[in-house]
This record gives sequence, structure tokens and C-alpha cells, in this order.
Amino acid sequence: MNNPQLDKNGRLKHLLSIEGLPKDILTQILDTAESFAGVSEREVKKVPLLRGRTVCNLFFENSTRTRTTFEIAAKRLSADVVSLHIGTSSQSKGETMLDTVNNLVAMHADIFVVRHAQSGAAHFIARHVAPHVHVINAGDGRHSHPTQGLLDVFTIRRYKPDMHNLRVAIVGDILHSRVARSEIHALTTLGVPEVRVIAPKTLLPEYVERLGVHVYHDMRQGLKDVDVVMMLRLQNERMNGALLPSAQEYFKCYGLTPDKLALARPDAIVMHPGPMNRGIEIDSAVADGTQSVILPQVTYGIAVRMAVMSMLAGSGE
Amino acid sequence: MNNPQLDKNGRLKHLLSIEGLPKDILTQILDTAESFAGVSEREVKKVPLLRGRTVCNLFFENSTRTRTTFEIAAKRLSADVVSLHIGTSSQSKGETMLDTVNNLVAMHADIFVVRHAQSGAAHFIARHVAPHVHVINAGDGRHSHPTQGLLDVFTIRRYKPDMHNLRVAIVGDILHSRVARSEIHALTTLGVPEVRVIAPKTLLPEYVERLGVHVYHDMRQGLKDVDVVMMLRLQNERMNGALLPSAQEYFKCYGLTPDKLALARPDAIVMHPGPMNRGIEIDSAVADGTQSVILPQVTYGIAVRMAVMSMLAGSGE
Amino acid sequence: MNNPQLDKNGRLKHLLSIEGLPKDILTQILDTAESFAGVSEREVKKVPLLRGRTVCNLFFENSTRTRTTFEIAAKRLSADVVSLHIGTSSQSKGETMLDTVNNLVAMHADIFVVRHAQSGAAHFIARHVAPHVHVINAGDGRHSHPTQGLLDVFTIRRYKPDMHNLRVAIVGDILHSRVARSEIHALTTLGVPEVRVIAPKTLLPEYVERLGVHVYHDMRQGLKDVDVVMMLRLQNERMNGALLPSAQEYFKCYGLTPDKLALARPDAIVMHPGPMNRGIEIDSAVADGTQSVILPQVTYGIAVRMAVMSMLAGSGE
Repeated sequence: MNNPQLDKNGRLKHLLSIEGLPKDILTQILDTAESFAGVSEREVKKVPLLRGRTVCNLFFENSTRTRTTFEIAAKRLSADVVSLHIGTSSQSKGETMLDTVNNLVAMHADIFVVRHAQSGAAHFIARHVAPHVHVINAGDGRHSHPTQGLLDVFTIRRYKPDMHNLRVAIVGDILHSRVARSEIHALTTLGVPEVRVIAPKTLLPEYVERLGVHVYHDMRQGLKDVDVVMMLRLQNERMNGALLPSAQEYFKCYGLTPDKLALARPDAIVMHPGPMNRGIEIDSAVADGTQSVILPQVTYGIAVRMAVMSMLAGSGE
Repeated sequence: MNNPQLDKNGRLKHLLSIEGLPKDILTQILDTAESFAGVSEREVKKVPLLRGRTVCNLFFENSTRTRTTFEIAAKRLSADVVSLHIGTSSQSKGETMLDTVNNLVAMHADIFVVRHAQSGAAHFIARHVAPHVHVINAGDGRHSHPTQGLLDVFTIRRYKPDMHNLRVAIVGDILHSRVARSEIHALTTLGVPEVRVIAPKTLLPEYVERLGVHVYHDMRQGLKDVDVVMMLRLQNERMNGALLPSAQEYFKCYGLTPDKLALARPDAIVMHPGPMNRGIEIDSAVADGTQSVILPQVTYGIAVRMAVMSMLAGSGE
Repeated sequence: MNNPQLDKNGRLKHLLSIEGLPKDILTQILDTAESFAGVSEREVKKVPLLRGRTVCNLFFENSTRTRTTFEIAAKRLSADVVSLHIGTSSQSKGETMLDTVNNLVAMHADIFVVRHAQSGAAHFIARHVAPHVHVINAGDGRHSHPTQGLLDVFTIRRYKPDMHNLRVAIVGDILHSRVARSEIHALTTLGVPEVRVIAPKTLLPEYVERLGVHVYHDMRQGLKDVDVVMMLRLQNERMNGALLPSAQEYFKCYGLTPDKLALARPDAIVMHPGPMNRGIEIDSAVADGTQSVILPQVTYGIAVRMAVMSMLAGSGE
């Protein structure tokens, strides 16, 4: 079976999930992002790579944060950007998602950045659009959010270049996280030997061990000697439900505090995908502390998205 | 009386309705659009014709689809685009529509793309703005939506260049359609000898024959030997009312199915302004079939809008 | 104590309020705006000064009008503009305002245009962002709206260049006005010898005389021989409350009518920050009359905002 993310020459055609990306493509994205990391630090933060191309942000679910990162990345590549928040629009007029997309393809949109509440929406679109069109999954249900996973891996590689020698702990709501699975896959593919997940049983998917991770329910044990602590966001709606006792209780057991962080290696880095719930999954002293690389993650997110878009635009020609 | 759409040298100054456009202007728009149809197929889909001009999308009624087409067209002409959705804005603060517009004129907006639920809104604005400002009607009530009419005519001319030898059928809700009247006018002006309208009596305006069309209530009779089938969108709210029995019944009588289409000429083209109600006014087998030019209509819509904006920007200097 | 609006070389770093701006900076802004006033009158209304910079409109409170003016100004400077309406976004996900801002700083936003319902929000952000980032206050509660104040002063200077010889009357809801205090301060700083405020007692702040103004409750007395009449907008919510008898009553006492304007100097100019309540604080005959400079104010508002942004971008390098 063909890999839907690659064109016939093995180049990146769509970015739908980290699962299924060969190691050389993953490495190519990170290496390309490295070159764009410099662009955003210049005074004129712009390259003409996508001049005259049209990037279409197609958001079936609202996410100002994600939309903004793709908009900034596309504009720094000199693309024209059009943002559509669907739901208030044609969808409510009974048009199918595919008709909406095909209309935009007919307007010669080149790259679609798709956000949808349902798993598989971006895959579905990628499978049905014309061959010259590229799709980036910007989050579909709980399934996947590959640019987040890529920027996390990029950040880890920047701070800990020797990935074959790392212990990484992912802490929190693994069950509902769009990114945890992608992270685990990417880290394993890039040769990280030990990935741990730390969570209460109620926030872990069944058979999580099969992903090749070590499972901890006790955060103090799980953080011991790790090089990277990746915190996950605890979504508010979880805290009202039966899954968790209370925010205070959660913070006590699974919130990252300075004393828990002290169990990790002294040069360990702390990551969080944002937006943070300070005092729930992370203590402000850690979030704003010297080991935090939470804001660099955001910075590298622009570089990674520029890299992905420029690679897509270069494929299939 | 002066034609409000033309400047004193007879050049296009505003685009308010197809009615009132002389044949040479109509032809000039179509010819100019022809040259822009190529731009959108290039890799760098951009020309510098409107660089440094400001196009203002002034939407008093939401329409993501229409807004997007004008935004893409303006950006491909290198204009700066500002989109305002009014209603959530100053209008609710008691400002008059004309004060809102005059403020934007004072900011040196060059072209206004106006969408309003009330008939005549774009005409009203055009009548009151400063002489160097141009207004494009992007839909006002049931009255007019001239760029839709123009892109339809452009599409017909592309596929059936010999317009003096055509039979065109317009099918569906003629009564509430913003475009049907414009189409009829444009087709007649460009020399199409036979225009038919096909609809139940409840969806036809009184005295429709006076527009020079042939009226059919039976779709099978009406489609016989036509070269072009233009389907209209059936708006959901009509189906709940007393005008129509039910969606199923409508589809049975006036939905375009392969067997009904077979009554037209074998090389007839099928058009629809979108968004489509599949299974109500059009069968998917036809919408996605080989005779459908529904997506090319969308593509040509960008070219036509680029043509109109570039002509407006070139007038009155 | 350091002036938070200036960098260590005394150049404009943030624009938070007119209070605290030294006279030479105030004059520099007006002089720079003078050069930009010409740009908007050209056909290609664009200069490359901010090419590759990112201007972020951060609106915690909706204001299409203000957002549009900054967006147009930034685009005419060739900046990339990203607009965020927060509230529907991460803020509702429990993220702090500062985390939202720091995320955007991490994406290398250069200039923030901040609108917030709470006084001091822009100051707070300016105090906490990285040193290379610039903040413009686009309205915070009742506190300040400095670009409005600057454009008013710019307009006065354009029409009445000899500011040492002027009588200016500010009429209306001084108590709730974001701008009245800024105006008074700017006018005094630039040497205007006589500033009058005209309002009912209920719409005047306590101790208003301490700002160096002359207080009038009778509009006919207050307008006598003034060179400039600055009307303020009467917010609808005030009219329902206990502060005022009725809109009709207000218009009778404090609405600017041709006969009241006749008491001012014959060459007096009339100003209003918009949006206007015609028939409440101002009569249409005056608003649209020959002495009105209400639309030029809007035009100069673009020039002033271009001036401020270009000065900010040039500081701190």
C-alpha cells in the first residue's frame, strides 16, 4: 500500500500524522526547520519561497493559537493566507466537507491546514483532493497533531542532540492527548532508547505498553534521572468528571513542582504544549524556571511549520 | 440619466448589477478575465496590478464563500485586503452605514466589496461615496449578485464559444434567486437566442416571460436539446414553507438526474452556483459527472473578480 | 524612575498614554505623521519600512473600527499583520494574559496593538515583555487611547498651526471618555493656552479643574470664540442611566447644532472621534458641514499610526 503522506518519489506530500513518516523524512523536516529557525531571528523575517502560493487555513473547530502559528509561518514564507472558520459558513448550508474543499481547490489553494474535531478528517481530505494539493493536519479529534509532535522533537534535539542516549518522561493525560502518541512514535523512530509515561490509570489508554513505553503511576519514581520532562495539558472538562478526584489532588500527585523536578537529571529540560494550567499540571516556579524550554518550543513551532510547508510546496512538481 | 456603473469616459466605475452594462463592457470583462484565467494556473499566482491599493470587504451579512473568492482575487492582484464583518461592529453602536463607509473612504480604501441583506445597498453606497472610490456588489438581498452572473457567462463562453447558437435552461428557484435575472440579462445581451426557465409556478416571478424567456413547468420538456443546464440552489427555508411539497418531491420533479440530463444535447454542460444540495436539486452522479463544469465555474470566478477589480482600478484616473 | 515609554536613548519604545510623553517626542510623532500623510494619497499607498516585521493586533475587547485602522496602517508599512480576538480563544482555556502574550513574543511578534476593557492592561504587558518588543495601547477601559489623542492633536495642528494662540472646547462625556484626559494633556504640552470642558456636572470627573481646564456647564457660554470644538461620543448606556434625563434633552443642551456653532469663531473646526450619534451629540448639518474635519481626522489617524509604528520599529536597535 502506498504511504498517503509521500509522493511517488518518496517526498513529503501531505503531513497527516507522525506515524508512517520514515526516519529520513522526519530527519529532513528537522534539518529544514533548523535553517528556518534563523529566519525568525532576523529583522526581515521573510523568505520568498512560497510567493504567489495560497495557503488556506480550514478550521472546522476554533483554535486561535494554532491558526496563528500557521498564519505567521505561511506569511514568513511570503504565501497568501486565507483563513476560513467553517461551521458559521457553507457547512451550515448543507454543503459537504468535500464540496467545500473542492471549491477551494478550484480557486487554486495550494496547501490546506485542516483542523477538525473528528479523527481522520485531514486524511479523508488528503485522499480526495487533486494531486497537486497538499494537506497539513492541524489537529483532528484525539487522533493526531503532527506539527506539535515535530516541534517537540525538534526542541529535544536542539537541547539534547545525542538522542540515542536519552530518557524522556511524558506526564499527564495520555488518554485524551492528541500529541502523546505522536511523540512516542517520533522519539522511538529517532532512536530515543527510553520513553516513560507517567499518569493515573484513568488517564492511560489500554495496552499503552505496546507502544514501547515504560509505565509509571508514581511521578517521583517516573521522573528519576530523566533528561526530558514533557508535561501534557489537563483539559478542564476532565476535572469535572469521574476520571479525577480534584484539581488540587491532581496537582499534588502529577503536577510538576520544583521538588519533583529535582529527581530528574540536573540538566533536564521541561516542556509543555500550552496553554498551561498553572497550579494544576505545572507549578509556575517550574514553568518560568531555568529548565523550562516552553517558550522555545513555541519559537521552534514556527520554524517547523515553515519547514513542512516549504517541503510540501517543493514536492510533486 | 447617467449610468451609475460607468465613468464619464464610459469605463467601468462600479459593478452593481449586470442590468445596465453595455455589451462592450460585458465583453471587455470576459476578455480581461480570459487573461487572468492563466495567472491562477501559474506557480506564482500573482500580478502587481493593485499593489498598494486597499480592497475593503464590507460584509453586512455573513458569506465566507463569497468573501474568500474576493479576498483571493484581490491578493492575487497584490492588493492589501481588509475584511470587516459589520453588525458585530459600529453598526450596533448606532452609526449609519454611510458613516461606516465614509470612514473607510477616509482611510483611502480604493475598492469596496459590499454584501448586504437589503436590495440596493451597494447602489446606495456607490451613489454616495467619493468619486475615486469603486463599489462591487457581492450580493444584495434577492436583487443582484453580478460577479456570479459574469462567471456563469464566462464559463458558458469558454465551453460554448458560439453564443449565437445556444439553448440555455435555468432550472429551479427563479423567484428567490439573486442570479437568475442577471444571467438572463447577460445571456440575452451576448446574443444567446433561446433562454428557458424551468420551475414550478410557485418558484417563478410573475410576468417572467417579459424577460424574453420560454417558461417550462415540466423539466423533461424544458431540457430537451439544450446546450447548457444551469441549476439553481434550493434554499432550505423554502422547503419548510408552503411553496413546495417536500425535498423528495422536488427532487423527483426538478432534481437533475442522469436520465433527465440525457434529454439535453449529448455535449451539454451542467452548472450550479454552489453550495449544492446534493440529492435535492442535483444528483451526485451529475454533479460529479463528465458534463459538470461546476468546479471550473469556481475557478473562473477568481479570474472574473480579478478582471473586474483591475478594470475598476484602471478607471477614473 | 524610568519612563516606561522610552528606551535608554530617549526614543519611543512603547505608546501607552500621552501622559508621560515629553514634548519633543510628541512633536516628533506629529512631524513623522506629516510625512506619512502623503503616502496614503499616492496610488501605491505602501512603503517598505516594516517589511518582514510582524504586527500583532491583540484585541481582548472587540473594536472593528480600531482594529481596521491599525491593520491598514501596518499593511501600508508592509508589515505582516496577525489579528487575534481573544476571549473566544486561549483565555477561555484558562491561560493567563501574559502567557498568551509571551507565546506571541516567542513567535517573534515585533509590535503588539493591545485593546482591553481593563485600565492598565497595555502597561502591564509592556512591563513584562522582552526588551525588543513594542506595545501600543489601542484603548484600555476608560484610561487611555493615545493614538486617538495624537490624531486629534495632529488634526488641530494641520488646520490651526499656531497652537500658542488657540481656544479649544471639549464637549460631552468627559467622565467616561478614554480620550478627553489625553487630549487635555497633549494640548497643554503643545502650548495651547486655553482648554475648556463643557458638560453637565454628572459627566465631569471630580477636580477636573486641576487638569488646567476651564469648566462650563452652559454650552453657549463655553463655545464663545473658540477655534476648535471637539465633540465626544455619548455612549448609549449612559442615556438609560440616572446620569442624564433623555437623549432629546441632552441634544437640546449639549448637542452641537448650527446655531450653537455660530457662537464659536467663524473659522472654527468641528471634531468628533466617531462613531457619531447623529441627532444626539451632533446635528447632521454640523457633522457634514463645511467646518467639520471629522473625516480628515480618520485619514490622519492612519498617518499617525504609521508614524508611531515606524518610530517604535526604529527604536531599541
